[in-house]
Amino acid sequence: MTSIEQLLRPDLRGRTAYGAPQLEVPVRLNTNENSYAVPDDVVAAIVAAVAEVAPTLNRYPDREFTRLREDLASYLTRTGGVALDPAQLWAGNGSNEVLLHLLQAFGGPERTALGFTPAYSMHPIITRTTGTRWVDGLRGVPGAGEFDLDAESAVSQVKEHQPHLVFLCSPNNPTGTALGLDVVEAVHEAAPGAVVVVDEAYAEFARPGTPSALTLLQGRPRLVVTRTMSKAFALAGGRLGYLAADPELVDALRLVRMPYHLSAPTQAVACAALEHAGALLDTVETIKGQRDRIVTELAAMGLRPVPSDANFVLFGGLDDEHATWQALLDEGILIRDVGLPHHLRVTAGTPEETDAFLAAMRALAPTHRQEQPA
Amino acid sequence: MTSIEQLLRPDLRGRTAYGAPQLEVPVRLNTNENSYAVPDDVVAAIVAAVAEVAPTLNRYPDREFTRLREDLASYLTRTGGVALDPAQLWAGNGSNEVLLHLLQAFGGPERTALGFTPAYSMHPIITRTTGTRWVDGLRGVPGAGEFDLDAESAVSQVKEHQPHLVFLCSPNNPTGTALGLDVVEAVHEAAPGAVVVVDEAYAEFARPGTPSALTLLQGRPRLVVTRTMSKAFALAGGRLGYLAADPELVDALRLVRMPYHLSAPTQAVACAALEHAGALLDTVETIKGQRDRIVTELAAMGLRPVPSDANFVLFGGLDDEHATWQALLDEGILIRDVGLPHHLRVTAGTPEETDAFLAAMRALAPTHRQEQPA
Repeated sequence: MTSIEQLLRPDLRGRTAYGAPQLEVPVRLNTNENSYAVPDDVVAAIVAAVAEVAPTLNRYPDREFTRLREDLASYLTRTGGVALDPAQLWAGNGSNEVLLHLLQAFGGPERTALGFTPAYSMHPIITRTTGTRWVDGLRGVPGAGEFDLDAESAVSQVKEHQPHLVFLCSPNNPTGTALGLDVVEAVHEAAPGAVVVVDEAYAEFARPGTPSALTLLQGRPRLVVTRTMSKAFALAGGRLGYLAADPELVDALRLVRMPYHLSAPTQAVACAALEHAGALLDTVETIKGQRDRIVTELAAMGLRPVPSDANFVLFGGLDDEHATWQALLDEGILIRDVGLPHHLRVTAGTPEETDAFLAAMRALAPTHRQEQPA
Repeated sequence: MTSIEQLLRPDLRGRTAYGAPQLEVPVRLNTNENSYAVPDDVVAAIVAAVAEVAPTLNRYPDREFTRLREDLASYLTRTGGVALDPAQLWAGNGSNEVLLHLLQAFGGPERTALGFTPAYSMHPIITRTTGTRWVDGLRGVPGAGEFDLDAESAVSQVKEHQPHLVFLCSPNNPTGTALGLDVVEAVHEAAPGAVVVVDEAYAEFARPGTPSALTLLQGRPRLVVTRTMSKAFALAGGRLGYLAADPELVDALRLVRMPYHLSAPTQAVACAALEHAGALLDTVETIKGQRDRIVTELAAMGLRPVPSDANFVLFGGLDDEHATWQALLDEGILIRDVGLPHHLRVTAGTPEETDAFLAAMRALAPTHRQEQPA
């Protein structure tokens, strides 16, 4: 061990940092960004909002990000199917930070968080960062999808592990499918000592008729729904994640957040984007169209795409997923190896990006397909 | 206990959140902000920098904030008395986050951090947030200042408590005085199992001849110097704290930071400010002049100001510090009650703000002074 390794918290030794490749390639479809640049009028609004706060950057920002919480509550009230109060809203520098606050407040040593793998890869990482024990729950419903999760299985795993936090992910990343609200309700009911977090980072891309867990918040003070502006809102670079929950639960997060954690520019940029939600979300239908096209065309190539409610598609049926990933990269197309044997994940980008990806896959499929699909 | 309190991490129960009052009053001298608005040409540069990144906010920011680390290294190399490499630099959303990363990496359950109280009030809060034990070390040198810290006392406390992290603060907040480098060297030597953090948030305000602990980094892989752009740089609203240390120590922080923790606007704003360091730091000499004036004039009123290397002055000799704090607030002047009996802390602002504060104190002093100074 080096001297720094000796100083490191023992459970961090030997770990490697999170690191999706950031490569300069023509077609980047690996981190589920929105491929559409921010429209000109929204750029103008963002710049104007920053120009307004810039002269007073010598002062600390509003520690309570009051206007941002109002704007987030208003957006969710308009789109989430339920009226929310600003006191129910909380935000951070990306949903990662919001999840960190939840784990700092409700996790910790001798506490356990349960998620159903494969799901968002940061859930176990953030959990362990706070010294909380992570339990890899299982997905898979006999007779249905291998990545589905039903209430019966989820409840039985919750009862077995008695977690202090449960992570549900809907639509699930990296598999793409939304979760029935019956699963959320059943897990919440079965875990009276747990904070139940429904990660809805991709909610805006869900297929019609997919209700949000926001509609379950009323009367469930232990339920949390997290969202992000990184995906549908095309604001990954602005780093704004948020959550909705009971005001008392939100208040508890003030004990663990760093004071003034949201800069004045971050607050201003997010508010400007929320004011132009319509323009930013205009891309969502196009992206969903490309996603559905990817599902259809990959299936036609003899591969096995998973039904998706998100802006990406997980597909199986590859002989050697790493070889396919590298072959695509050699063509300037970066997608994601999520660590699932025989599977890769691709973001639904612009029609042109989708063309490039599908053309490359069409050429690769005959030799890269699994000979005997499992 | 409410149901949320029952769910809360046990050691957080009953705690209250950090909360310096954010009040709209004419004279705000309570959080050691730089009272000078950001100059017009710097505002223009900040706005231009954000305009450049705004169209691509749909993409995640550079996770390694490469340009910002280069610019920070360049600034410290120009001003800190020692050449630094970008690999030695790390940054966060305010120095609070940088300190959090240090505690997440090197603290944790069954580990101890030692600081010398009174010092920056967030050190124990951030320490406890990570489940690390905090030890309140003592300041005070017989025959010298009651808030001074000498090598002998610091070393003896380090040997007694065997901490995993030691916090030194130079210039110290809230007392204002810089620390001799002999103390830093002695503490580092006496604590071979500890990361030694020198918090230099106020370094730019130090009196002439005060060397930075940056000059001690070479050959000390366990030494860390933290800085911020919130004070001298007049960028509290931009939230940019940073540190310099050995590249291997910096690399360990990648294990605990949230990926993409610095937004593209945050990186752009900070780089623009660093490019205009000269213009922003132009206020420093004026502020130091006001600080020295506060020290002189409070002493002339029969109060007991502590010698300061920062942009604030701690002063004792008050009969009832809370009554004085309230009397000033009633006049529209907000200063800081730091929880030290008979003391208050005031930020050195503009000459006009200083005028207002000193005029109010002159009127209050005859009745608010301690009759029998301790």
